[in-house]
Amino acid sequence: MTSILALDFGGTKLAAATVNIGSREWLRYERRLSPAIANASTDLEIMRSLIHSLLQDTQPVAIGVSFGGPVDATTGTVRLSHHVPGWENIPLQELLEQEFGVPAAVDNDANVAALGEYRFGAGQGYDSLFYITVSTGVGGGWILNGQPWRGTGGMAGEIGHIVVDPAGPVCLCGKRGCVERLASGPYMAQNAREALTAQPKLWEGKILRSLVEDNLELLTGQLISQAAADGDDLAVEVLRKSAWALGTGIGNIANLVNPQLFILGGSVTKAGTQWWEILRQVARETALPEIDFEIVSAALADDAPLWGAVALAELRLAN
Amino acid sequence: MTSILALDFGGTKLAAATVNIGSREWLRYERRLSPAIANASTDLEIMRSLIHSLLQDTQPVAIGVSFGGPVDATTGTVRLSHHVPGWENIPLQELLEQEFGVPAAVDNDANVAALGEYRFGAGQGYDSLFYITVSTGVGGGWILNGQPWRGTGGMAGEIGHIVVDPAGPVCLCGKRGCVERLASGPYMAQNAREALTAQPKLWEGKILRSLVEDNLELLTGQLISQAAADGDDLAVEVLRKSAWALGTGIGNIANLVNPQLFILGGSVTKAGTQWWEILRQVARETALPEIDFEIVSAALADDAPLWGAVALAELRLAN
Repeated sequence: MTSILALDFGGTKLAAATVNIGSREWLRYERRLSPAIANASTDLEIMRSLIHSLLQDTQPVAIGVSFGGPVDATTGTVRLSHHVPGWENIPLQELLEQEFGVPAAVDNDANVAALGEYRFGAGQGYDSLFYITVSTGVGGGWILNGQPWRGTGGMAGEIGHIVVDPAGPVCLCGKRGCVERLASGPYMAQNAREALTAQPKLWEGKILRSLVEDNLELLTGQLISQAAADGDDLAVEVLRKSAWALGTGIGNIANLVNPQLFILGGSVTKAGTQWWEILRQVARETALPEIDFEIVSAALADDAPLWGAVALAELRLAN
Repeated sequence: MTSILALDFGGTKLAAATVNIGSREWLRYERRLSPAIANASTDLEIMRSLIHSLLQDTQPVAIGVSFGGPVDATTGTVRLSHHVPGWENIPLQELLEQEFGVPAAVDNDANVAALGEYRFGAGQGYDSLFYITVSTGVGGGWILNGQPWRGTGGMAGEIGHIVVDPAGPVCLCGKRGCVERLASGPYMAQNAREALTAQPKLWEGKILRSLVEDNLELLTGQLISQAAADGDDLAVEVLRKSAWALGTGIGNIANLVNPQLFILGGSVTKAGTQWWEILRQVARETALPEIDFEIVSAALADDAPLWGAVALAELRLAN
C-alpha cells in the first residue's frame, strides 16, 4: 500500500509505471504506442489495460498524471489534446479517483517535467527554476519557492510564444519571431528548406542537401544539427538562430523573474556544443550583469513525464 | 503604540509619514527635497530630523522603507543608489532597528510600490500582479500568491532591460531595443531629438519643434506626449514605439508568468489615451488568445512608495 502509480498520456505514446514511495527504481513499467487512429476513448482503454497489468490485485496510494496538452490542474480536467481528438474537457482526475478510489493529480507535460526535474533530476537542491522543452514545440514549466507556479489561468510557462524578433518569420500563432518559430525542430527544418529554395544555385547548404539527396521535404531538425556538426554553413546559421532565440528568451526571463536555474530538455537540446555555447552566451548578454543563473541539461530524459507524475502524486498526498 | 512609520528615500526627495494600523489616512506627513550635493549621510541626517519631528515622544510598532535603488531585501541592506553617492552596502534595516528598537523592513521602490498597490491601490482583491513604473527608467515588482516575489538574487522585475527589438537602438546597458530604451521618458526625448536632427528640413515634428522653439535639448517625454496630443506626426511615432515596446513586454510576461493584473504607474503613463490604446492592443496581440489579464493605471500616485512602505512594515510584523 505504499506505491504510486504514474501515467503519461504523451500524444503518440502511453506509458504507466509504479514505484514505492522514496524509491528511485520502477517496480513495474509498461509502454505502448497510440494506435494510428486514436481518440480519447482508445487512449483511456489502452491506459486501463496497462494499469491493470501493472497493479494486478494491488492498489496505489495515489496517482500522478502527465498529459500532453493543456490541463486545468486545479481540477485535473484536460482541456484538449493537440494530437488526439475527443479529449475536450475530460475530467481525468475525477475519472481516476472514482475508478481507483485514491487521490489523483493531473497536469500538463511541461509542468510535470519541471516538477520531476526539481524532485528527482537536474533541479534537486534548487528552489526556483524554469524548465524548458525544445522539440516539436517549445514549452516551459515553473518551480517557484519549491512549488509549481502555473499562473492565474494555468497558462504560465509559454516561452514558445514570446516574441524575440518582431521582424522575424510568421509563426503558426500569427505573430512574428516567436521563440518556437525560430528554435523548434520542425521550424528549423522549414527555415533551412526556405533558405535552400530561395538560393537554389549557391554553394551554401551543400552538406544539408546531400543528407536528404536534394529532397528538401525530408529535412528535420536533427539533420540540421548533423549537417552543422559537419560544417554546413547554412545549417550552422539556422542552428545559430535557434540558439539565439532561446538564449534571448532565457535572458529576458532571468531579468523578469530571476530564477536560480534553467533546465533544458527535448530533442533540439541534443543539437551539439555550438548550439549550447551560443545559447549560453546570448542568455548571459541579455540578462543584466548582476543577475546570476545557471543553464543545464535535463537529467531525466525519456522518463521525465513519469517521474514528474510521481512527484505530482507525492505533492497531492502532502497538500 | 499602534502606528507604523513609513519612509521614502526617493533619490531627489525624502518623505516620512505615520499612520495607525488599519487607517488609510496619514497621522503626520513630512517631505523634503534632497540637497543639491547629497550623500548617504546627508540623506540619513535629513530623514532623522523628519522622523523626530513626526514621532516626537511616541514610538512606532514597525518601520517600512522604500529605497530608490537596488536593495537586498532579505537583510534590508541598500546595495547602492544611482542618484546619491555613499549608499553602497548600507545596512539600513539594521541601523533603523538599532536606533528605534522596533522591527524594520527595506525594499526597492518598485517592489514596495507593487506591494502598496496590492494592499491599498489598484491591486486590491487580486492575488498575482506585476507593477510597472515608466518614467525616467522602467522597472517592475511582482506579487505572486499574495506575496512579493523578488527572485533568487532579489533582482526580479527588471522589465526595463528585457529585449523586445534586437534591431532597435542601443541602450545604456549595451543591448539593443530594451523596453527602457524605447519606452522611458528621457529615451523618448532622445529618439525624437535624433529623428529631428536626422531630418532637419522635413515638415515632420513641426509642433514639437515649436514647443521647444527649435532648441532640441529642451525636449522631454512630457512634451512629446503634448505634441502627440496636438497631432504632431513625429511625436505620435515616438509615442507609438514606446507603447509598442511596453505592450510587447507585457504580452510576453503574460505568456511566461500569467498574472491576473498589470498595474502601470509613472509619468509616461500620463501620455494620453493613444499610448494606452496601442499598449493594450499590442499586449493583447502578443499574449496567446487563451491568456487573460487586465492592464490598469496605478491608484496611489505620488504617495505609492509611502503606502507601500506601510504594507511592507505590516508584512514584517505578520511574518
